[in-house]
Formats: sequence, C-alpha cells, structure tokens
Amino acid sequence: MTGKRARVDERVNGVDVDADMRRKGRLPPCHNALVTALLTDTYQLTMAYAYWKNGTHERSATFELFFRKNPFDGEFTVFAGLEEALRFLSNFAFTEADCAYLRSTSIGANMEGEFFDFLLGLDASKVRVYGQLEGSVVFPRVPLLRLEGPLATVQLFETTLLCLVNYASLVATNAARHRLVAGEDAQLLEFGLRRAQGVDGGISASRYSYLGGFDATSNVEAGRQFGIPIKGTHAHSYVQSHASWSTVKNPKLVSADGSTTCDDFPALVMEKLKQLEALRDDMDLELRWTDTNTSELAAFTTYALAFPGSFLALVDTYNVLKSGLPNFCAVALALRELGYSAVGIRLDSGDLSYLSKQTRSFLQSIERLLGTKIADRLSEVSITASNDIHEAVLYSLRQHGHEIDAFGIGTHLVTCYEQPALGCVYKLVEIDDTPRIKLSEDIAKVTIPGRKKGYRLFSQTGEAIVDVMTRDDEPAPKVGERMLIRHPFEESKRAYVVPSKVEPLFNLVWDREHGTQESLDLTLETSRRRCKESIHQLRADHLRYTNPTPYKVSVSAALYDFIRDLWFAEAPVGELR
Amino acid sequence: MTGKRARVDERVNGVDVDADMRRKGRLPPCHNALVTALLTDTYQLTMAYAYWKNGTHERSATFELFFRKNPFDGEFTVFAGLEEALRFLSNFAFTEADCAYLRSTSIGANMEGEFFDFLLGLDASKVRVYGQLEGSVVFPRVPLLRLEGPLATVQLFETTLLCLVNYASLVATNAARHRLVAGEDAQLLEFGLRRAQGVDGGISASRYSYLGGFDATSNVEAGRQFGIPIKGTHAHSYVQSHASWSTVKNPKLVSADGSTTCDDFPALVMEKLKQLEALRDDMDLELRWTDTNTSELAAFTTYALAFPGSFLALVDTYNVLKSGLPNFCAVALALRELGYSAVGIRLDSGDLSYLSKQTRSFLQSIERLLGTKIADRLSEVSITASNDIHEAVLYSLRQHGHEIDAFGIGTHLVTCYEQPALGCVYKLVEIDDTPRIKLSEDIAKVTIPGRKKGYRLFSQTGEAIVDVMTRDDEPAPKVGERMLIRHPFEESKRAYVVPSKVEPLFNLVWDREHGTQESLDLTLETSRRRCKESIHQLRADHLRYTNPTPYKVSVSAALYDFIRDLWFAEAPVGELR
Repeated sequence: MTGKRARVDERVNGVDVDADMRRKGRLPPCHNALVTALLTDTYQLTMAYAYWKNGTHERSATFELFFRKNPFDGEFTVFAGLEEALRFLSNFAFTEADCAYLRSTSIGANMEGEFFDFLLGLDASKVRVYGQLEGSVVFPRVPLLRLEGPLATVQLFETTLLCLVNYASLVATNAARHRLVAGEDAQLLEFGLRRAQGVDGGISASRYSYLGGFDATSNVEAGRQFGIPIKGTHAHSYVQSHASWSTVKNPKLVSADGSTTCDDFPALVMEKLKQLEALRDDMDLELRWTDTNTSELAAFTTYALAFPGSFLALVDTYNVLKSGLPNFCAVALALRELGYSAVGIRLDSGDLSYLSKQTRSFLQSIERLLGTKIADRLSEVSITASNDIHEAVLYSLRQHGHEIDAFGIGTHLVTCYEQPALGCVYKLVEIDDTPRIKLSEDIAKVTIPGRKKGYRLFSQTGEAIVDVMTRDDEPAPKVGERMLIRHPFEESKRAYVVPSKVEPLFNLVWDREHGTQESLDLTLETSRRRCKESIHQLRADHLRYTNPTPYKVSVSAALYDFIRDLWFAEAPVGELR
Repeated sequence: MTGKRARVDERVNGVDVDADMRRKGRLPPCHNALVTALLTDTYQLTMAYAYWKNGTHERSATFELFFRKNPFDGEFTVFAGLEEALRFLSNFAFTEADCAYLRSTSIGANMEGEFFDFLLGLDASKVRVYGQLEGSVVFPRVPLLRLEGPLATVQLFETTLLCLVNYASLVATNAARHRLVAGEDAQLLEFGLRRAQGVDGGISASRYSYLGGFDATSNVEAGRQFGIPIKGTHAHSYVQSHASWSTVKNPKLVSADGSTTCDDFPALVMEKLKQLEALRDDMDLELRWTDTNTSELAAFTTYALAFPGSFLALVDTYNVLKSGLPNFCAVALALRELGYSAVGIRLDSGDLSYLSKQTRSFLQSIERLLGTKIADRLSEVSITASNDIHEAVLYSLRQHGHEIDAFGIGTHLVTCYEQPALGCVYKLVEIDDTPRIKLSEDIAKVTIPGRKKGYRLFSQTGEAIVDVMTRDDEPAPKVGERMLIRHPFEESKRAYVVPSKVEPLFNLVWDREHGTQESLDLTLETSRRRCKESIHQLRADHLRYTNPTPYKVSVSAALYDFIRDLWFAEAPVGELR
C-alpha cells in the first residue's frame, strides 16, 4: 500500500492505520461503516445455521462471482469494488451486538445458543480469494472473484460482495463509456450527488466514475475520501440572489501581482461593459445584444471578487447570448486589466451544440474587435456544459459539432439511468472437490462447473483476442502454440488461436495466512490507470457506441467436454405428453 | 420520540442518545456516518465563500425543495427522507478536519483564512424549516420543505437535502405503487440488497420500501437499524451443496411438543415420499411425476432439521412440479407427523402464474388423496415468488390469476429500474423579503415565487380534491366557503372549490431555538401508517396503474396574479429577426 492511500485512510477513519496490520495484509474497514457482518440477506444466516446444525459448515466450497451480460447494450464491463470487497473480508466478524440483535428476531430466536458462539469465532482466515484486478475490463461468465473456503463462511459473504461489486462495476463501466464517446480531450466532471441513490450511491459514484475515466467530482466528501479532484462554480440561485448593484458590498480587488488595488471593481466592470457595447454594431447580426441583466452582472462581479484567479460564470440564468456572455466578457476584461485570466463559462440549458458554437463565435468576435492586447485568449476560455448530459447526448454532440471543453454529468451517470443494475451472481461451482453445475432452461443461466483457470490471449499487435477458461489442472495456453477454443455451450462454435501473449486472469488477492499480497496495489489511481490501459487493449469495434462486436469468451476443449458430461449426467431427458 | 426509536439509535451508533439533547429537539446523527458538512457539491462552498467575502452571507433567504413531475408515469409521490434531513440539520457543523481538507484543495487554497473560522461557527440554529410530513402523499410544485435562514447557510444545505430526500421519496413511491397493484393481502418482501446502488442504496431501500407499504426485508442490517421484520429461507446453492443423503449428518429431530425424538428423520422423509409415490397414479395426468432429485430431498431434509417450525423450501432448483413439490410434500408430511407445520415454498423462475396455480392444485390433490388426517391444510401453505418481479409483473399476474401469497422483490424495487431518479430541486424563492422568480422557456421549470402557504382541500366524502398554494399573508381557505383556484401558469384553467375539510401542508419541523417540535413523530411506523392513510385519501382514479387522472395542484387568485406580475416584470419580450 502506498503512503498516499494510508494517509487517505487515516483521514477517513480518524484513526491511524496500523502498519503491522497492513504488513499482515489486513486492510482498514470499508469506507461505509454500515458494512457489517449483518449487511446480508437473512437467508445467508439461516443457511449458515442449517449447515452448522447439520455439521457440514466446514465442507470445502468454491463460489464464483460473475455476471452474464454486459450492461448498457455494450460489449465490455469494468470490474470495480475489489478494494472494498477485500476490506470487508479483512474485517469480517460478528460482534456480540450483532448476535444479540439476531437472537431478538423471530428467526434467531429459534437458533441454538452455540450457533452464536460459532458466529463469534468466524472470520475470513480460512478463505482464499482469486480475482481479476480492479479496473480491468471483464466479460460475461468469466469470474471476477473466486472464493474457496468453509461452506458456511463463504456462503455468508455472498450478498455483501455482490452489493460491493455490482454497483461499483456498473458505474465504472458507465463512466468508461462516457469517456469513450466524449473523447480523450474532454474534461469529464461527475455532478451526481443530489440525484444519487442514497449517500454512498453518491460517494461511490464519484469514486468509481473517477476510476472509469472521469477527471473530477463536485462531491467534496468523495474528494476527501478518495483524493479525487473537486470542481464547482456557482448555481442559478447565486445569480438570482443578486437583485442589483446594491448587493455588491465589498468592491475592492488587489491585482494579481499584488502591485495595485482597484478600489471600485464594479465600476471597472461597468466600464468594460460600455466598451463592449460600443462594438456591438460591428458584430455579426445574430451575435448582437441589447441590454444585459444587471443582477446577473452584479452576481458575476461578486463572484469574480471572491475568485479573481479562477472566475467561471454560469451564463444561462437569463439569456446566454444576450446577457450571460456579454456580462461574462465585461467581468473577464476587468479581471484581465488587473492581471487575472478568467477560466470560462458554464451552460446549463438549451441546445448545447448551438450555444457552445455561438459562444465561441461571440468570444472570437470580441477578441478580434478589441484586439489581442485587451482580449488576448478570451476566445480560448473553457466552455462547460451540464444539462441532463449522458452517453447518447455526448454521441450526438460529436455528430453535430460543438465547442464544449468540459461536461458536468450527474443523474444519468450516477444512477446508471439506462440500466440501473448489473446482474452479478455468486454461484457454487465445487464442493469437497466435486464440481457442481447449476442447470437452467435458459442456457445463459447454466453455470460453468468446477474451479477454473482463466487467461486473456493477445494478438501480435497487442490486442486482446479472447478470454479462455480451462480446467484447474490444465497447463496454461502457450505463446506461439495453437490452441482449440470452444464456446462453452454451443457445439458448432470452435476456433483455433495462436496467442502472442498470454495473461492469467485470476490473481490470488486474499489469503489471510500469507496476508493480502504485498504486490497488490489497490490505490484508486492504479485502478484508474489499469482501466484506461485495459480498455485500450480492446479492438475499437468492441468499444464502439453502435452495434459493438461481441468479445469472445471461450473454454478449452477439455473444459467443454467436462461441462457437457456433467450436464448430461445431471439433466433429465425431457418428456412430451 | 418513542422509547423504541431511541433504543434503535443507541444500538446503531454505539452511544446513548442524550435525553437532554432530544428534549432540546436535537436529533441523533444520520444513520450513515458519511453524511458530513462536506457531503455537498463544491459550488455550495464556493458560493458560501463568495457571499461571505461580499458580506452578504447573512441576508435572509428562503429556499423551497420540490419536484416537477411524479415518477413512474404516475400521479402521486410519497415524501420520505424527512427524519434523515432533520438529523442532518440538527448535527450540521464543520470540523477542523473538514476545514483542513478544504484548505488542502486547489479551491480552498485561494480562500481567506477567516472564512474557515466562519465555517467552524456555522450551524442550523438560525434556520427555520417547514415541511410536509414523512410518508405523506405529495404533488408536483408543492414544496416538500421550505427553509428560511441566512443565505450562505441555507444554500449550503442544498445538495445534502436533495440527496437525502430524492432517493428516499423515489423508492417509497415505488414501494407504494407495488403495494397498490399487489393488493392489501399480498405479503411484500424487499430482497434488493445485492443489486442496490451502494450500501445504503440497499439499507435505505429497505427502510423506505417498508415505509411505502412493504412487510419485511431480507436485509439484516436494515432490520437492525430500523426495526423492520426480516425474512429469508435458502438459496439454490443450499440445494446444490447436498450431493446425496450422505450429507445429512445429524438426523435426529425432537417433536414439536418435546414428547418424542425421531432418531432418523431422513428415513421418515423417505417413508413419506414412498407414500406420496403410491398415489401418483391417482393424480391428474399433468401433476404426475417420476423420480425426484435426491440431492434436493436431502437439502430440504437438513433445512427442516434446522428449522422444523418454519420450514420453507425453494422448489425450483431442478423442476418445480416433478421434483421440488413432491420433495417438499414428503418433508412437510414428515414434519407434520412430529407436530410441525411447514410454512411453504418459494418459486424463483418460470411462469409464476402457471406454476403457482399448478402448485396449489398439486397440494390440493395430495391433501385430498391423503385425507385431512395426514395432510390437513397442506394445500394452504404459503407460496412465495421471487424472480425479477416488478410492478408490471404484479399487474399481469393479477390479470392472469395466480396463487402467490408473498412476493420477494429486489432489483426493480430498490434501483427503481423504471425511473432511477426523482428530480427534486431546491430553489431560491425569496431574499430579504423580496420574492424571486426563476424563469425558463420551459413553463414546467418556472418557479412559484415567494414564501407560500399550502393546503389540501377535501370533499364531503373525505377524498382529497386539490392542493392549493396561497401567498404567505393570505387567510387560509375556509370549510364550506367557496374559493377560486387557478392553475399556476395556464390562464384558462380556473375552478371554484368548496372544501369540506382543509389541512395545512407545511408544518414547522425545525426551529432550533424552540427545538424540533415535541409533537413531531418521526418513527418509521408512524410514517408508514401515514403513507397508507394518505394514499387512501386519494380517489382511485389518481392511483390506478394505467392512465391515472392527474391530481390538481392550484394557486389562489392572489398568488396567480402575483406570479404573473413578477413574470412580466422579469421576462424580456422576445424579438424575432
């Protein structure tokens, strides 16, 4: 763990993270204190009791956590939530208070007292976890996590792990998709807290949006918890609260270099507005304005007085082109005279393609008409847009052209409006070294039995070709060697592949005996970088917005045969009457 | 506050809730410790700074929190989140650590040091809050909360309040809609934790689903936090983990009255299965089965050994009618012989209408064939269904008929799949006693300016007719007196109304000087009861699933004129070129 993460943790939890604990691979608690051993479905506890009562709670079980379908009609998913999952496991324990609560319920009231002693002694020390790495691109049916350990214990983790991984991965994927369609150059800002599904629907949205490729968040607490840059300017209410110039109480502004003081900055702003008005008639007809709103100008002025070095104005309270922009320019020119550069403007309504292009034209006209001495680079200020933006809007803006530098994205991003849930499941695949299959009339729901190994195979050009699962005891695919791969369920789908690079997918991520692997870097920055790299290893056609090509997930010939044998052994032959 | 709530709080926060604090109207902290003064958008802090810097932070401001459109294409919304909102206000404070973090950011680095002293001194003591009551049915444009107080302070609450109210109200509304379409008799169980958007996307879903009319949750932590009944049985993995009879290690079962011990309960189950097999040929052709799955029978047997008094079996791991049901019956009959009554079965796949009806027929056939002495009331066991259920499925099940007693509802309920965000906003309506209007080209987005009063008017039959807003200084509508009411923006929409009952909508809910009102009952049970009553005061046509009639929200004639005057004064006349 890096020093940076440790510092963040100290801040978060208010206690120092014991270095010894870290050396032993024990992680700090989850960021949300509501993650307890009881943050689970009741039936996990009734099953644990039934196993315990039957004396089979220590049987050796293997569960896999995976999903069956990529979200958002896409062909990839970003795995997130691993750090929280490991924090949960690392601190998993029932307390006396947990047991007292359970015994007070109608369900616990019928359980034998010794069971609670059993619960009090439980932890994750007998459990081993293999996983893909946080931020990696992952695909349907390939396990994100594999847990091996005592049946009752590993069963007890199901709901909590699903809760910690499902939304994290969903929102990270959503963010990555926004990044892909917005392009690398756009600034992407997460603005979703007010519409999020609960408090950490907001906080984890900020975290995992950053992981998925966003640049910053408006959420201050998330900034603190995870070291994410925070961003923000002002709201319409700020403009509305300024009824006139009389609300400007503190008109002085010291110049950027500290050499002079402007005693009446509002007067300077008014002077600049007059200067701008003088060249209205030289502007293109459609960019001309009449009178601007004075409340708005007063609001911009007080905001600039507070933030002369980072002035960014919301220009659509009244009318972008007829009031907001000329007012912004007046303030920006006044600031410039005192050595400050305005940062930019924000649009929060209307046709963003049109308005952003008109805004750029407006600024360019002013710059041209005033000359570079007075208005140098005014036309280069940043344009932020923030009205109900989502992936489809970004796509459409790209089609129609725009001049937007930064996007503030809220509701659609954090609530994953287009698909608000990812369907990760947690399935028993082996018990006491006997592989188990879960059949279903829906082929997509059949599980792939037994402990498996997984690999990502790459082409000569470094692109990922296919994810392959093999039986646990098979040798790994070899670079340069031809391998037969098969669709797990469809007999006719077979292919040969000669990998130029082979990457194992399942890393040992938790084994308390030996501690969490020293080499495991769980920092958000690392996961964020991994996400970007992992996505860029995919061919563009898997990533494109419309009709992306499915990425192949295959099994080895041996695993294919094994699935089929077990399937036929378990499934009754149907009967038509 | 009742003793019960206080006890829950003590358990939750690990500290006793100071009785003196409660008397003074101060509430315990929010359930989620991540609710801090920094759980807000960055721009709230930059605006606060700009106000402070300008010396206008103490101006008297009024903000209203409201939404513009009911969710789920419906015509009502349930207001929830008030208790958490008041807990937030009650404990609102910046800490030294909060300020240290802020100063470490690029935004805080440019703020003057005295501003942080100002922040450290802030609390909600100068703020007054009026609100509708938690659990009430509420409508578009009528404020859920109105906050009055110093401009910077009241502005700082915006994001957190929206976050605490938006999702709470959305999921409570979703739950209430599920209740309406399922009918009063159905048991509704919230099963959503694993798919929820974050940890308290899960915990608050449980809480507010219960408020909206659900009966129980699977989420144990939510059960503990809020005193909600918890429910659960077992998963498919439980069945899969039992490969054969050899996994039954502890075969003894004491009878319900303690008088005898059955040394080999599995043998008794096998005997019952043989007994059932003997009457297969007498059953309707479509209900006949051949061999049942032994792993499943072994699993049911161990589960019954653990929970003889509350046996409920998941019967669809292999085949409901050919394996699950006969196996369930064998165990249920064996339990019955020892004096226990089985609770029921759960279906988690397939055609729930068909399967539930076939299940009931199957149980009825068995009961009829075995006679009441052996199988009395077997056919009355509870049928629970739990596969991707949502409002439309419940509606369809009612159309097609079913025999389901209880529904376990997860993903669609907790993520509000059909509409994952409610659009509550927080708007400045008055400053220094000057009403402010926010105009928009979209009429639905125009705000209703000024402090207002609100009333719900009822008909002679006790049904709610209309919500009316008036100016703050107008007299309240009077019972039996004719009143002219108007649509807030559409001139032609006017009506007279003679109310038989008038209920004021905005209650003083926070005023630290006098404490939170003693009379304010924030317990979950009270809000849940209020929700049910409040919904039942609406006419059925406002509530129906398809094409519900909009409920009227109006303004008084005086408020209508006032809106129009302010609108015309603010809005520039358009210009076409």
